[in-house]
Amino acid sequence: MNATREELARRFFAVRQQTEALCQPLCVEDYVVQPMVDISPPKWHLGHTSWFFEKFLLEKFSASYAPPQPIYNFMFNSYYNSIGVRVERRQRGALSRPTVEEVYRYRHDITARLGELIESIDESTWKDFHELMLLGIHHEQQHQELLVTDIKHILATNPLRPAYHAATLPTRADTLPDTFINIDSGVYCIGYNGNGFCFDNEQPAHKVYVDAFSLQNRLVTNGEWLEFMEDGGYNEFRHWLSDGWDAVQREQWRAPLYWENIDGVWHEMTLSGLRPIDQYAPVCHISYYEAEAFASWKGKRLPSEAEWEIACSVLGAKASGGNFLESGYLHPVAISENDLTMKQLFGDVWEWTGSAYLPYPNYKHSSDALGEYNGKFMSNQMTLRGGSCATPESHIRATYRNFFQPDKRWQFTGMRLAS
Amino acid sequence: MNATREELARRFFAVRQQTEALCQPLCVEDYVVQPMVDISPPKWHLGHTSWFFEKFLLEKFSASYAPPQPIYNFMFNSYYNSIGVRVERRQRGALSRPTVEEVYRYRHDITARLGELIESIDESTWKDFHELMLLGIHHEQQHQELLVTDIKHILATNPLRPAYHAATLPTRADTLPDTFINIDSGVYCIGYNGNGFCFDNEQPAHKVYVDAFSLQNRLVTNGEWLEFMEDGGYNEFRHWLSDGWDAVQREQWRAPLYWENIDGVWHEMTLSGLRPIDQYAPVCHISYYEAEAFASWKGKRLPSEAEWEIACSVLGAKASGGNFLESGYLHPVAISENDLTMKQLFGDVWEWTGSAYLPYPNYKHSSDALGEYNGKFMSNQMTLRGGSCATPESHIRATYRNFFQPDKRWQFTGMRLAS
Amino acid sequence: MNATREELARRFFAVRQQTEALCQPLCVEDYVVQPMVDISPPKWHLGHTSWFFEKFLLEKFSASYAPPQPIYNFMFNSYYNSIGVRVERRQRGALSRPTVEEVYRYRHDITARLGELIESIDESTWKDFHELMLLGIHHEQQHQELLVTDIKHILATNPLRPAYHAATLPTRADTLPDTFINIDSGVYCIGYNGNGFCFDNEQPAHKVYVDAFSLQNRLVTNGEWLEFMEDGGYNEFRHWLSDGWDAVQREQWRAPLYWENIDGVWHEMTLSGLRPIDQYAPVCHISYYEAEAFASWKGKRLPSEAEWEIACSVLGAKASGGNFLESGYLHPVAISENDLTMKQLFGDVWEWTGSAYLPYPNYKHSSDALGEYNGKFMSNQMTLRGGSCATPESHIRATYRNFFQPDKRWQFTGMRLAS
Amino acid sequence: MNATREELARRFFAVRQQTEALCQPLCVEDYVVQPMVDISPPKWHLGHTSWFFEKFLLEKFSASYAPPQPIYNFMFNSYYNSIGVRVERRQRGALSRPTVEEVYRYRHDITARLGELIESIDESTWKDFHELMLLGIHHEQQHQELLVTDIKHILATNPLRPAYHAATLPTRADTLPDTFINIDSGVYCIGYNGNGFCFDNEQPAHKVYVDAFSLQNRLVTNGEWLEFMEDGGYNEFRHWLSDGWDAVQREQWRAPLYWENIDGVWHEMTLSGLRPIDQYAPVCHISYYEAEAFASWKGKRLPSEAEWEIACSVLGAKASGGNFLESGYLHPVAISENDLTMKQLFGDVWEWTGSAYLPYPNYKHSSDALGEYNGKFMSNQMTLRGGSCATPESHIRATYRNFFQPDKRWQFTGMRLAS
Repeated sequence: MNATREELARRFFAVRQQTEALCQPLCVEDYVVQPMVDISPPKWHLGHTSWFFEKFLLEKFSASYAPPQPIYNFMFNSYYNSIGVRVERRQRGALSRPTVEEVYRYRHDITARLGELIESIDESTWKDFHELMLLGIHHEQQHQELLVTDIKHILATNPLRPAYHAATLPTRADTLPDTFINIDSGVYCIGYNGNGFCFDNEQPAHKVYVDAFSLQNRLVTNGEWLEFMEDGGYNEFRHWLSDGWDAVQREQWRAPLYWENIDGVWHEMTLSGLRPIDQYAPVCHISYYEAEAFASWKGKRLPSEAEWEIACSVLGAKASGGNFLESGYLHPVAISENDLTMKQLFGDVWEWTGSAYLPYPNYKHSSDALGEYNGKFMSNQMTLRGGSCATPESHIRATYRNFFQPDKRWQFTGMRLAS
Repeated sequence: MNATREELARRFFAVRQQTEALCQPLCVEDYVVQPMVDISPPKWHLGHTSWFFEKFLLEKFSASYAPPQPIYNFMFNSYYNSIGVRVERRQRGALSRPTVEEVYRYRHDITARLGELIESIDESTWKDFHELMLLGIHHEQQHQELLVTDIKHILATNPLRPAYHAATLPTRADTLPDTFINIDSGVYCIGYNGNGFCFDNEQPAHKVYVDAFSLQNRLVTNGEWLEFMEDGGYNEFRHWLSDGWDAVQREQWRAPLYWENIDGVWHEMTLSGLRPIDQYAPVCHISYYEAEAFASWKGKRLPSEAEWEIACSVLGAKASGGNFLESGYLHPVAISENDLTMKQLFGDVWEWTGSAYLPYPNYKHSSDALGEYNGKFMSNQMTLRGGSCATPESHIRATYRNFFQPDKRWQFTGMRLAS
Repeated sequence: MNATREELARRFFAVRQQTEALCQPLCVEDYVVQPMVDISPPKWHLGHTSWFFEKFLLEKFSASYAPPQPIYNFMFNSYYNSIGVRVERRQRGALSRPTVEEVYRYRHDITARLGELIESIDESTWKDFHELMLLGIHHEQQHQELLVTDIKHILATNPLRPAYHAATLPTRADTLPDTFINIDSGVYCIGYNGNGFCFDNEQPAHKVYVDAFSLQNRLVTNGEWLEFMEDGGYNEFRHWLSDGWDAVQREQWRAPLYWENIDGVWHEMTLSGLRPIDQYAPVCHISYYEAEAFASWKGKRLPSEAEWEIACSVLGAKASGGNFLESGYLHPVAISENDLTMKQLFGDVWEWTGSAYLPYPNYKHSSDALGEYNGKFMSNQMTLRGGSCATPESHIRATYRNFFQPDKRWQFTGMRLAS
Repeated sequence: MNATREELARRFFAVRQQTEALCQPLCVEDYVVQPMVDISPPKWHLGHTSWFFEKFLLEKFSASYAPPQPIYNFMFNSYYNSIGVRVERRQRGALSRPTVEEVYRYRHDITARLGELIESIDESTWKDFHELMLLGIHHEQQHQELLVTDIKHILATNPLRPAYHAATLPTRADTLPDTFINIDSGVYCIGYNGNGFCFDNEQPAHKVYVDAFSLQNRLVTNGEWLEFMEDGGYNEFRHWLSDGWDAVQREQWRAPLYWENIDGVWHEMTLSGLRPIDQYAPVCHISYYEAEAFASWKGKRLPSEAEWEIACSVLGAKASGGNFLESGYLHPVAISENDLTMKQLFGDVWEWTGSAYLPYPNYKHSSDALGEYNGKFMSNQMTLRGGSCATPESHIRATYRNFFQPDKRWQFTGMRLAS
């Protein structure tokens, strides 16, 4: 096996293994449930990420391959209309079978067969195969993040408040210094322009003009959020978008998701169980509506996604070393540095931007099933940047565009101000 | 231990054991899910029937008892407002914890403690204790039936169509002869008047006048139901009550629940897997609306609950020997006799009556938590009689009143005609 | 024209005229709106009662008749599936056309043509014609009551609180004496057995056995209802049926419909505008659930419909002289007598019974369109007896069965206790 | 009265008069109904546009003014939280009172009082007053457009299909020539930068960079839309955004709103009644989702709002002479010219852009009640440009930003392609 094949095999097995390692602390029962429609049962993630490789790699490149369980195509398809009908999303938690053990068996079988295919596939189809394998690997990394957030929801909404693990999180004794860093106006290039992997929605790279702006050097903290709450932020419609105010009323939001007031002290549910709020750590599990209202209350605004990306390139910010999945904290943490340079652009929390998730100029979406991957979701969502404590480090880039509806809160979502 | 105590202990342990035996074929995952709001996850049934004994027996009669897991009171309470708040019914399937193993541990602990209490309880409180124990035992038997119907739903709606067991069902080669048996008009007494256990809704026994009527000697069969379907029964509003016709449109009913047409042949999902319809077996999993429409199509009607009960007493019908939970079939079956005497008043399927579930004259509901048991459900439901293939034989009586909303179909519900 | 024809013409014209007189105080705008799905715009009532005569009389008995506006068949059909599709009930208030003037023109045309037909119809078809005319007349009387209750809802829910008229209501200065009148047990005959008009649901007359019971000699009053409220009746689940308690939570019921607390004083919206509660007048606009909860709070119960009807026949109660539509009050009033005889069985408010609306033994519903009239509604409703202040006096009988879902409150519905 | 005051009075009275002229063809009943939640009854528009002047002008600038009907503040407030509670939007059609006549009386009173105020107001407050008067006038012009679209909905969804007027629309005999006009890349300035009136959302003017693009010289026509339909456009998920495809399924969209297929020929409901589709006229009453899907089917895209506005400024396009409210057609029409210059950027139909409705860089929303005017709606909506056949000509500008949710179709909304 040549070096390229070895490299692919190594990455592939590592990612497959990582997904399973994330599930290691779970009981069988935790794999099955779906407390709300946005989340999926962990066993569904295990099955779906395997089905993706089966459907788009094995069925395509392995002539002799016949799916051992054709009905899995119905059960583990997420949203690909071109692949046919599928279990309704909200019914994923209604399925006790296949069992967790059967899903693992299916998963291991797919992994092994792809391992063989990496070795044996003909050189003539290698390029197409390799490209789709990279997509499959990045797709699975996306589901690693979802696994973490979905497991958190499953445990955090259980009245027993079970912990997933017992991590010791770094803390600090005072507020991180705060400033706004200026970036000049001008025409900049954004979007992915390199030779590596990227998703279709990061392209094409293109020019944008931005006015001079300044960006907060750190993330908004829990302490600042408490000030917003104490100032009646959730009770004053003037701070809110109209749809946001409706959501506050309808959902009875009074604090970020997973916060609980116990005898006058605010706590939050983490993957290490219920803990008092760390006022110096970044605020997390807020919706776009809340982020927008907070910025309005502060007399500031959210950055656009272009501004965020330009700040990365002007300041030379890199993802390396942030608080990602690999740290094992699985929670945003206060950082120890005290200087006023730009901090935490990557990791800890996804940062809501003020930009709607729309196609870049001259964006083209491919016409096959994978063309459904990103393009068709380009309405009614807002863009987030920078990855979180649940994102694999190798998965994130400055050009990476994440997107959620403005009322979603179960992801590790936070914010930074601009002006 | 005296004989009465031994007898109670025997019954108590037998019922507790029976519930667990019913779960024996399940995978861990099957215990957790809730595909629709009417059903409960099997582990919830295991926990709830234990909580019932904990709440109403242990906490009351065992001075030193402190619940080891107070939050179970929140998780396993079904609908007792007087006991406090509880997990919303539709969220029961969202809970992965306590695990199945933990629930069994809780359950076994409760069983053991009650076993001790049966031996040790003071004679002065024995009478009250014994009465509540009987209620707890009958309550658990009710949940045995629900366990069977809920397990059936969990498996039958799974795309893999898994079987629970592999039962061989008795069949017959021809239609059971059919007649209508006449009962004279007169004033009869209905309701429970004996010395044994009964539910509050069976009392007081009281007099009713009925006109002369006649009652079909057997249950309506699948073959007859197919005739109704082939005659366009589900497409002709004239047969239906207005609310029933709305349900047909809304739910797209075209056949009983669990029926599937596979290549032109009607099959039904059973606990032994998917099987072709047995045309000589009783029809099952029909709503009141369907039963009423079928009767209207036939130019007949459903019996009132008084008529049904009077027929039992006039004809001397007894529950003994019917097709109950104990037969192990867990499915209604064709019977082998060919004579024209009254058949299957007990067992196989609950029989929809044309009577609304209302209190008997001079019904009194008690003022404590157990007073919520039956009385508060006396609106918008119809009464059913006779028990089913999922009812424990010792649980049923001629005076027993079951009740469901007229659109429910997941119980083993069938019908018999009157005129 | 012979006497029978003259008599029919007289009644027909009188009823048609009465309906229009009820609308006389309305503005054009009041004819059009539908503030909730249960009510219909007044112009729809005017059109529908005309359509009924057009469809079932003119089209059938007048060979040359061609509907001038065939689409009215779509717009003014209420629920007759056999007549074809129709405007959805909840969209009745979305229709500005036909205008009120056009509806009156249509109505007057129908009235005139039927006037001619009464004179000219052949003797050979007279009997059928006459029978259907009587049905049409009683149908229109039913809609007169609905007109009053729907107009009340339209005005009472308008923030301007407009009055329909300015009636002076009789009052009294003290509580009407209160007793319970005993009726012996026995087999009685109920249902309509005379030669006049009745609806199909009042037949056949049949025997019932009732235990001895006693019935309150007057209606429950507003003063008594205030006691229930002050005792926390709406906050204590123990009094309520389970479905009723859900309704209390969902609808936020804290008092009867149309009651408002203004600066600590309870008022109610009447057709004469907003007035302080008259504590000696009968309580009104309560649902079955509220009636049932009140009875439970009092330690009493609601009478069955058989008991109510037997009390009428045993006590020789007649409808004559009650407070009906003709009094012009359009509101239940306190009566002036002080003796302990049975009062107000007829008029003022419909009395909720504890009986579900179900077919009488051997009830037959006819197979034509008119067969849809009553039979198909026999599920999920409760029976009411006695008529109200909005019922035409000639329309009511001791055997008359009205029926509504247990959560409805916009009719003039009240109660009397039994035990 | 000086010239400025005379000019303001002239404009004010003209706009007030124009609104009433639009209602002239209505019956009283047409003023009252609300067939769906998005539209408002015409009498509500008459009242609300008067309330706006009362609330923000009379109450502020006329010291002695006391609202004669304070409850109108509750009934005619649209969405200003800062003004207090209000009638729920979906209940606007439930209100028969105030009557149409009363609303006109209220309206005329407000008009007269403001006429006096224009004359008498002190010079020291004139500037503020004048600014708010202009806002009120433009606000009323917005409601003129809504009046037309809401009246159309009221009439078009009535089974009688009544016409509002009888306009003769210009037609043409062949397809308008079609080309794409190129615009160079570069940094351009967009947003309002003049001295006249504009809404807050058009500011601040700011620079944007756009790549070279080309814009279709005319609007997409009904004939082209028929091709899309005949090619199965509504059945092929590949063309659609995910949310759009959901809307197609849920709403059963098969053609633009108001289209009906009568005996194989497509017709559309217009304000002049039901007419065959004019294949050379611009397509209208399409949602953003449909516009986006059509563009995708064509292999093109929608222009961004910046591109649209830049095209106006580069090509020197002016609103003058388009088909606006003043033409009286109240329907988009085919134009007669045959050259390939840019056509119909203004008038006929609002053009969906591919831009989300978001604040411009450095947008500031004011802190008083009027600050709720535009800013709080900046989520989940798409921007439209150019005005329609229902827009007053003096109301539109190249910088004008209209916005609706992507599934709305009852406005005069169409499209033009870009690439």
